[in-house]
Amino acid sequence: MRRSQRLVLITKHLTENPNKIIPLKFFAEKFNAAKSSISEDLNIIKSSFSDAREGILETIPGAAGGVRYKVKSSEEKIKAFLQELCDLISDKNRLIPGDYIYLTDIIFSPEYSLRIGEVIAERFIDEEPTCVLTVETKGIPLALMTARALNVPLVVARRDIKVTEGPSVNISYISGSSGRIQNMALPKRALSEKARVLIVDDFMKGGGTARGMTELVREFNAETVGIAVFIATEEPKEKLVKNYTTLLVLEKVETMKGLIKIRPGIF
Amino acid sequence: MRRSQRLVLITKHLTENPNKIIPLKFFAEKFNAAKSSISEDLNIIKSSFSDAREGILETIPGAAGGVRYKVKSSEEKIKAFLQELCDLISDKNRLIPGDYIYLTDIIFSPEYSLRIGEVIAERFIDEEPTCVLTVETKGIPLALMTARALNVPLVVARRDIKVTEGPSVNISYISGSSGRIQNMALPKRALSEKARVLIVDDFMKGGGTARGMTELVREFNAETVGIAVFIATEEPKEKLVKNYTTLLVLEKVETMKGLIKIRPGIF
Repeated sequence: MRRSQRLVLITKHLTENPNKIIPLKFFAEKFNAAKSSISEDLNIIKSSFSDAREGILETIPGAAGGVRYKVKSSEEKIKAFLQELCDLISDKNRLIPGDYIYLTDIIFSPEYSLRIGEVIAERFIDEEPTCVLTVETKGIPLALMTARALNVPLVVARRDIKVTEGPSVNISYISGSSGRIQNMALPKRALSEKARVLIVDDFMKGGGTARGMTELVREFNAETVGIAVFIATEEPKEKLVKNYTTLLVLEKVETMKGLIKIRPGIF
Repeated sequence: MRRSQRLVLITKHLTENPNKIIPLKFFAEKFNAAKSSISEDLNIIKSSFSDAREGILETIPGAAGGVRYKVKSSEEKIKAFLQELCDLISDKNRLIPGDYIYLTDIIFSPEYSLRIGEVIAERFIDEEPTCVLTVETKGIPLALMTARALNVPLVVARRDIKVTEGPSVNISYISGSSGRIQNMALPKRALSEKARVLIVDDFMKGGGTARGMTELVREFNAETVGIAVFIATEEPKEKLVKNYTTLLVLEKVETMKGLIKIRPGIF
């Protein structure tokens, strides 16, 4: 096989497997090539990614070593993406009576959810999460794509106990915005004691749901290593969780005036 | 920029954008190269993909033309993947009282859901679906990954009407297995009249939920172009929908005997 073909197929494999350590041996055997040739291929890929600022190719030395492709965008690209989202969301046709905004087309879009998931993933990758947790329903696409970019499992808390999922841990929590009592359940086998959990959700107002998830994590004796949401409201300023990252901040919604004010929440 | 670098970056872009037509001009401008050079690059990528049977690179002629990367696996690879899933699922530790099987770790896994979504996508790509429809909750990851491979939006029906999603179309349907009446709602703006809908779900027993989704599609005057599920039970043989594709067929579950029998449903 020629070098050019190997470059194509190795790049494809790395792009399809973010944050996974792949031994050089894997490629050497797959392409029937010497490790030294694969090593040269990887150097070309590494510099191509880095010159174009399209991700990082990391070399991990040692017996369990190999290469790992990490999603990483430039600050300018992320800024441009967040601004694109703000422009999209502030369209007054998205207003729904009750000062709500129609967001499901964005949240359920494979393209946007993938890019949102990647932005979240690269901000928390150094915390080394071992799983991503969300609660049904609208957080699932973003959380799944975050988990994909981190190469970790996704765990989804349900609103009700499901007989099809076996014994579960259930908690009640108070919604920060409505003040109502809500329930959340997670199958006992979904989370291990040593889990390092990254919490991801689509929307935060009072922070009650996110706090509920941190309490659920505590019930499993696991650790929350981060909380990330797609959109958080500016008010109330005091949320029920202390540390969280939000991609966008929703400043104001006034249906009568046809007004939506939203801005990037990072940088 | 050298050819090797262009090969790497073009391959990365194509892999990240399945089923999207990308004009040659896009790459020519991005890499400041002549269209003829890009064309040669694409030929190398095309033959690399096709020799390794890792997808297809299609050339679309004309003014609106360009190249399109389509997910496409060999029959052997899909067979091996389905067998891997059967082995994973038939582990008796997955049994839950009531003859249920714990599947959420597989269904919510980014790795498995991505590969399952790709298998579904490549079987329905020629029907040219314009969106993928599922109903919350467990169908979402598979449906999202199917939508990603097809480069179309995902639409998610909810069990209840949501005030945050505006006016909706609601239907009641009878669950094929339990005989109970259930509800399903879809925001009016989620589906257009001309939509060609691919229905995706995680599990089918009686087929009532899938049938409910076809009825919902009809309420929008749209068309269902296919129904795909991850697992369908062997019994009842007569489902409430006529045509469907299932990746796996669940033959038998006997908790008392520690028995799960499951086999591939395609090929």
